[in-house]
Amino acid sequence: MSEPLVYDEILIIGGGLIGSSIARAVRERGAARRVVMHDRDKSVCDRLRALDICDHVDEVCGAPNADLVILAVPPGGIAQTAKQILPQMKPGAMLSDVGSVKANVVEAIVPLLSGGIDFIGGHPIAGTEQSGPDAGFASLFTDRWCILTPSARTKEASPGAQKLKRFWQALGSRVEFMDAAHHDLVLATTSHLPHLIAYALVGTATDMETVTKGEVVKYSAAGFRDFTRIAASDPVMWRDVFLQNKDAVIDVLGRYIEDLTALKKAVRWGDGDTLLKEFTKTRAIRDKIIDAGQDVAEPNFGRNPPEEGESN
Amino acid sequence: MSEPLVYDEILIIGGGLIGSSIARAVRERGAARRVVMHDRDKSVCDRLRALDICDHVDEVCGAPNADLVILAVPPGGIAQTAKQILPQMKPGAMLSDVGSVKANVVEAIVPLLSGGIDFIGGHPIAGTEQSGPDAGFASLFTDRWCILTPSARTKEASPGAQKLKRFWQALGSRVEFMDAAHHDLVLATTSHLPHLIAYALVGTATDMETVTKGEVVKYSAAGFRDFTRIAASDPVMWRDVFLQNKDAVIDVLGRYIEDLTALKKAVRWGDGDTLLKEFTKTRAIRDKIIDAGQDVAEPNFGRNPPEEGESN
Repeated sequence: MSEPLVYDEILIIGGGLIGSSIARAVRERGAARRVVMHDRDKSVCDRLRALDICDHVDEVCGAPNADLVILAVPPGGIAQTAKQILPQMKPGAMLSDVGSVKANVVEAIVPLLSGGIDFIGGHPIAGTEQSGPDAGFASLFTDRWCILTPSARTKEASPGAQKLKRFWQALGSRVEFMDAAHHDLVLATTSHLPHLIAYALVGTATDMETVTKGEVVKYSAAGFRDFTRIAASDPVMWRDVFLQNKDAVIDVLGRYIEDLTALKKAVRWGDGDTLLKEFTKTRAIRDKIIDAGQDVAEPNFGRNPPEEGESN
Repeated sequence: MSEPLVYDEILIIGGGLIGSSIARAVRERGAARRVVMHDRDKSVCDRLRALDICDHVDEVCGAPNADLVILAVPPGGIAQTAKQILPQMKPGAMLSDVGSVKANVVEAIVPLLSGGIDFIGGHPIAGTEQSGPDAGFASLFTDRWCILTPSARTKEASPGAQKLKRFWQALGSRVEFMDAAHHDLVLATTSHLPHLIAYALVGTATDMETVTKGEVVKYSAAGFRDFTRIAASDPVMWRDVFLQNKDAVIDVLGRYIEDLTALKKAVRWGDGDTLLKEFTKTRAIRDKIIDAGQDVAEPNFGRNPPEEGESN
């Protein structure tokens, strides 16, 4: 294990689920000597103070002493927030973010850099369906991947990039460097499409004129409830994600609608062989996800624990 | 609370997740004096004996003494199994099933009834993504709904129907009577469509030529992993469900593809207002599901528990 202390002082802008979890994890693991937080919402600042998860909450945002500034604001606000904070950062400091879309952020911020300040995009693949400072917790990043997207200006091998990597490792993450455009395609597949699918399903189910909302709620344990968790995620953040990762989302969504239409045709024609073939391919990937430590093996995500003392 | 003992002897045909869970629940709660099980697969019979969850495992299926026979076989085999067991059932006994599609089963079995034997379709809205006798557990039905679908022949108010209701209540379920065709539309919405969506997503994600399977696995915690649980469900059972509930599935799937296409258009046109409106509707239904006791309130289904001793 390397030394946990990576930065002297860090500033986290945005006190939501991710920002407040970073603060908690930094304190628990000693990854920085001093953590300052800022949120443009005064009530969030008050809450951050009450939670006592950082050393100082700054209502007027400045970054004179921060060695690392992390933008933990919704994707739509990242470029604008970067523009405001960059002139106040000290020479040699690092700017990063935690947004779910990377290419447009790298493109918008890199031209603004000067004075030896670097920017590397970051995306911890972790979260819950909840939002706000109270939703965060220190172990959110443990064993989850964090993707860093260096630019042509700031390469993976640079000391700044390696230091940012050590920081995320100190919070418990595994770190991977990736091209920003490729990141956006991978996440469109593993994150953005699943969320859009879930949002759409909740819409379809609650708009049925022949099935009541009460019935949808009562009989949700048959599958539907799983989708409502993802569809309960922060609407503003997800609006921004889809607006900012348009091309990749339209690509994977188009493919998905094709695949769904093929399954619809198989149902219509009573083509049981095709259905069985498609349904059989899928268990293997779940096993791989569990083996990779990215999900729990317990049935129903452990929501249905057998009673104590039961042998089977 | 009523007397837990409801039937003297029951026969469960099929020793998978549901059948073996019924046996365990009956024993734990004393809902029948004697439980006999049968499975056409000899290795399942051996396993049922080893698990010791019923009084007798019958390799040659007969039902001379059973007051209730439950068909816990995949949907495609229910009508055929009913045909075989009905002539062996004693006068006045009740036949039921646990399949996810009801109209076709009621239609196929009711004309076969004679000798005071009744049939009422049953569907416990409970399960996990696992299969087989080892996957079952006694609390599977606790606080879950069980839908019973009486026919014109055997009405809800009949003593047989009320007795079957008491049986499921004794296993911990809440019971609702419903018209079989309406059941199939409700479940197409809350169960069959979600499963088809999940199976299709796993197919789309693993068929991307620009994103590797390794990347899909590594970054699955961003949403994709949730879908792989549902898509790991028994492929044979689900093939049967879609073949047997064709009309309702095509109806809701068609609506869903329309809704998804509308969201795709909103993404293409950068229509953030529409996206935000759709994404904002969905948190309310999750809250209702949690209030109704049909899901846990913990973030990430409780997969990310905060460490012990952590205050936030």
